Amino acid sequence: MPEKGTYHMVVDPFDVDFTGRLTIGQLGNHLLNAAGFHANERGFGIERLNEDDNTWVLSRVAMEFTELPREYRHFTVETWIENVMRLFTARNFCIRDQFGNPIGYARTIWAMINRQSRKPVDLFSINDGRLGEWALKDEQCPIEGPTKIKVSVDEPVDVVKVKYSDIDINGHMNSCRYIEHVLDLFSINYLKEHNVKRFEIAYMAECLCGEQLALFKEETEPGVFQIEIRKIGTNEISCRSKVIFN
Amino acid sequence: MPEKGTYHMVVDPFDVDFTGRLTIGQLGNHLLNAAGFHANERGFGIERLNEDDNTWVLSRVAMEFTELPREYRHFTVETWIENVMRLFTARNFCIRDQFGNPIGYARTIWAMINRQSRKPVDLFSINDGRLGEWALKDEQCPIEGPTKIKVSVDEPVDVVKVKYSDIDINGHMNSCRYIEHVLDLFSINYLKEHNVKRFEIAYMAECLCGEQLALFKEETEPGVFQIEIRKIGTNEISCRSKVIFN
Repeated sequence: MPEKGTYHMVVDPFDVDFTGRLTIGQLGNHLLNAAGFHANERGFGIERLNEDDNTWVLSRVAMEFTELPREYRHFTVETWIENVMRLFTARNFCIRDQFGNPIGYARTIWAMINRQSRKPVDLFSINDGRLGEWALKDEQCPIEGPTKIKVSVDEPVDVVKVKYSDIDINGHMNSCRYIEHVLDLFSINYLKEHNVKRFEIAYMAECLCGEQLALFKEETEPGVFQIEIRKIGTNEISCRSKVIFN
Repeated sequence: MPEKGTYHMVVDPFDVDFTGRLTIGQLGNHLLNAAGFHANERGFGIERLNEDDNTWVLSRVAMEFTELPREYRHFTVETWIENVMRLFTARNFCIRDQFGNPIGYARTIWAMINRQSRKPVDLFSINDGRLGEWALKDEQCPIEGPTKIKVSVDEPVDVVKVKYSDIDINGHMNSCRYIEHVLDLFSINYLKEHNVKRFEIAYMAECLCGEQLALFKEETEPGVFQIEIRKIGTNEISCRSKVIFN
């Protein structure tokens, strides 16, 4: 039976920024953890997939929030599958404060790949085609899905090197670090005066330890920033992001 | 009555490194969280101190471990006050795996400062001098305390800029990020072949967003590294660290 998963979380004091509120990078971690719990509990988590040498790959994220919870506050992440297509599945999230009021939503798009071939796997072939049975089509997620991101500038605004602390258990830069690298392109003074209203990221190529990344940033409308991270040398696009401030 | 605090924790999947084990930086966060809980529960936590415009400042840490827990594993942090002197207090930790076996220990040294004057506060003057009553002098912590750290090299091995994501609720670089910056000085190949046996850090001057830091590293004996982080411009020493590998 299709159903939401509901997970209770607490804001650790080291997961807040200078405003005392949960960082967007750490919120991203919490959403991915909730996704992992929900999938594991229903037999399509990474551990089960790994037995067949398949794995989930996060492709796109769009998040919107009114205000993020403060340190030590309890909050809840609800997650559900919106739909399953042959090559992609959409998973949505609702974030609620300690009183149960919605304070944010997220939409994510995932693909499945074979770990040997790195090629996409047909989602209709997984679990005897039963993945689609988990879709909760009528659940509301009142934010726009991922949109087009386009960066036209040629000069990078920063260069970063992928280091040990950026690397996750798969040997790639972890998803949260990309978000941090994007937000680190803004000055603390700008962030003192503007709140992020919407954050989007599209993951395109994994980064390995030692790689150098060039970061491009363009303000296409007031408070709307398009960002691109490219690998230096190959010029391969690693990710694109859009940040919209209040 | 003096007593240990015991806190149950879980390794989040984004808090492990490429080996699949909890990072030392995240272990540091967990120890500081445990210290915060223990102090709050006994009336000498940051919130209570802030009412008098005082706060705790972490001065030194020494940690040793056999192996750190893997993702999703439960573990326990025990913490207690070893002693209270006029200007410093020593707080120790034992880390236990899910079976209750010790897998690591830590010793930390703290001072208290007034948030206005930034001057040290006499610990005997706090809580009517009752802080010392919490000391558990007979509890075992079988590792050496913080030792002398000395770096003699003149050429930095890396330069980093303090960014938004490094900054905590106090507006300073968070304690965990220093640990990450230190470990990022080692190549992933070195870290694949060597495990950290002991990690020490001495916090000397807080870093603000936008400051540039020069990192110095010297291998004084095989597998023994002394590290210093200095602010570029003022040359002020921000922290010193020692990493000992197996």
